[in-house]
Amino acid sequence: MNNRVISLAHGSGGRLTQELIEEIIYPAFGNNGGNPLLDSALLTIDYKKIAFTTDSFVVSPLFFEGGDIGKLAACGTINDLAVCGATPLYISVGLIIEEGFSVELLKKILRSLASAAGDAGVLVVTGDTKVVERGNADGIYINTAGIGVLPQDVRVGPEMIEPGDLIFISGAVGDHGMSVLTKREGLSYQIPVASDCAPLNSLIKSLLETSGIKCMKDPTRGGLATALVELAEQSKTLMEISEERIPIRQTVSLGCDLLGLDPLYLANEGNLLIIAKADKESEIAAVLDNHPLGKEAKLIGRVVSYRDKGMVLLETPLGVKRILTMLEGEQLPRIC
Amino acid sequence: MNNRVISLAHGSGGRLTQELIEEIIYPAFGNNGGNPLLDSALLTIDYKKIAFTTDSFVVSPLFFEGGDIGKLAACGTINDLAVCGATPLYISVGLIIEEGFSVELLKKILRSLASAAGDAGVLVVTGDTKVVERGNADGIYINTAGIGVLPQDVRVGPEMIEPGDLIFISGAVGDHGMSVLTKREGLSYQIPVASDCAPLNSLIKSLLETSGIKCMKDPTRGGLATALVELAEQSKTLMEISEERIPIRQTVSLGCDLLGLDPLYLANEGNLLIIAKADKESEIAAVLDNHPLGKEAKLIGRVVSYRDKGMVLLETPLGVKRILTMLEGEQLPRIC
Repeated sequence: MNNRVISLAHGSGGRLTQELIEEIIYPAFGNNGGNPLLDSALLTIDYKKIAFTTDSFVVSPLFFEGGDIGKLAACGTINDLAVCGATPLYISVGLIIEEGFSVELLKKILRSLASAAGDAGVLVVTGDTKVVERGNADGIYINTAGIGVLPQDVRVGPEMIEPGDLIFISGAVGDHGMSVLTKREGLSYQIPVASDCAPLNSLIKSLLETSGIKCMKDPTRGGLATALVELAEQSKTLMEISEERIPIRQTVSLGCDLLGLDPLYLANEGNLLIIAKADKESEIAAVLDNHPLGKEAKLIGRVVSYRDKGMVLLETPLGVKRILTMLEGEQLPRIC
Repeated sequence: MNNRVISLAHGSGGRLTQELIEEIIYPAFGNNGGNPLLDSALLTIDYKKIAFTTDSFVVSPLFFEGGDIGKLAACGTINDLAVCGATPLYISVGLIIEEGFSVELLKKILRSLASAAGDAGVLVVTGDTKVVERGNADGIYINTAGIGVLPQDVRVGPEMIEPGDLIFISGAVGDHGMSVLTKREGLSYQIPVASDCAPLNSLIKSLLETSGIKCMKDPTRGGLATALVELAEQSKTLMEISEERIPIRQTVSLGCDLLGLDPLYLANEGNLLIIAKADKESEIAAVLDNHPLGKEAKLIGRVVSYRDKGMVLLETPLGVKRILTMLEGEQLPRIC
């Protein structure tokens, strides 16, 4: 990493975030047994396999169409556990509140967090509250950490991905990112875009029952494109997806044109990228179709072959294939 | 809670923090099975008892005599697990970094965090990094969450406290708070005060082997006085401590006189308040004396009787007894 100071792009979830983690954060913890610093750690406590993860939420504005920072804080951590195949059980809530923040808004945020956790069957069991001087913390920051239990027979992860596998996305992409940007920029459309923010654990539970799931990822910061490239690199495969098949709402598309953004790099908070066995296509499609969060799911591509340096090709409507890259730098303005 | 906005005092760790938790935060999570929101939650995963806790660190300045925010972030969470009788195993690290923050300082902080965790035998296994705009986050905020395992035979907690029990403190009080204040206010003493910041799990392990430990608490925000009042209220007991017996360094005492502060309300980060069985006094004193973190330990008082509304009496050197209260509001300036 050549940078001497941290930039906003280091928090974008794209290539620079990866560099920061691999070159600065990971080496610092190398003395701790060399365990890799993953988004969700898979651990063992006396033969019991558990998943453990954490996420901080610094979204601005705090409230947007379809959700708020509280709902996000619950769903983000629940989803990070669930995509690893774990059943989310418990979350912690760490609040950093700006002096002068409204108690009414705090209540509203906490109720929203509790309600999303409750919907997902997850208990908020421990917490911490700090207050910082006026001007800091942008109202409120929330950290959640979560614990889930891993069923003995579930094996999912990038190492399971093989050529021939199918690539599904469970819903329209970019809704969350566009919802936050719309609110922040004071834009209005005839049809407002609501964030897709939702706990994915019930959908994932149904999907795992098909025995056809190889790997899952929720494409949050950095969007669908970054998530796909990460999986291709981790599994050392070549993936091909079809631009036409990617579900994108017209309002998101128009908003992106207006703001000069690419919807494939916008954050999603209740959307699931699924890599699945080819012979389970119809079962998986049926599960998705029968779940409220999978109604707009699409099969968007395939894993083509092994490739030492993983790569994702995007086939455009004209039949041209272009290399899809991770988010480089930051699509301004910052939204998470 | 009558306040309509959050004030710094709500984060002080004293009475207002308690009000915020009991009146605003706790009720919000009431729908989640009514589990109490404790500093360290005691949970069960398939008959296995675990402890789970979280803490955010927003200290300013980031570096001070005897430690930095990284060391604090490791020790704080490790200690919250250990005081519940758990063996700390794993921690998560959530970083919220201000745009423009020095990569060198970040490395230094992470190395310090990793080193403290390593010393305590705890693995940093998962993390998250967010970057916020310049002017926010005061350089860096760190959240850590931790998981520990509870031995089946360990039972400690305020519900174990009974009349006759002894009250020990493992070291001089107020060192951490004074160290941070000194650095922040640009004060200098002939003998600088170093923070006591340290992982307490090894000392606690030795103490538990005596079978004489009833309850432990690390008196962080709000200091020894607040921690004692909390325990007295939770155990519905009357406690009496002797002011003369409380170990306080001369420099801390002088600094407090200068700044108009009371050392009993200054934060400690490697100091242990112990409630123990009276018949184990000599064994516990021996364990403390043989451990590097217990060399300055003192027996400071006793649990006198049950009392419906818990209370702590402080006997002054003149023999007068006064009621010790929790920290009300904030001893300005904020230090954690």
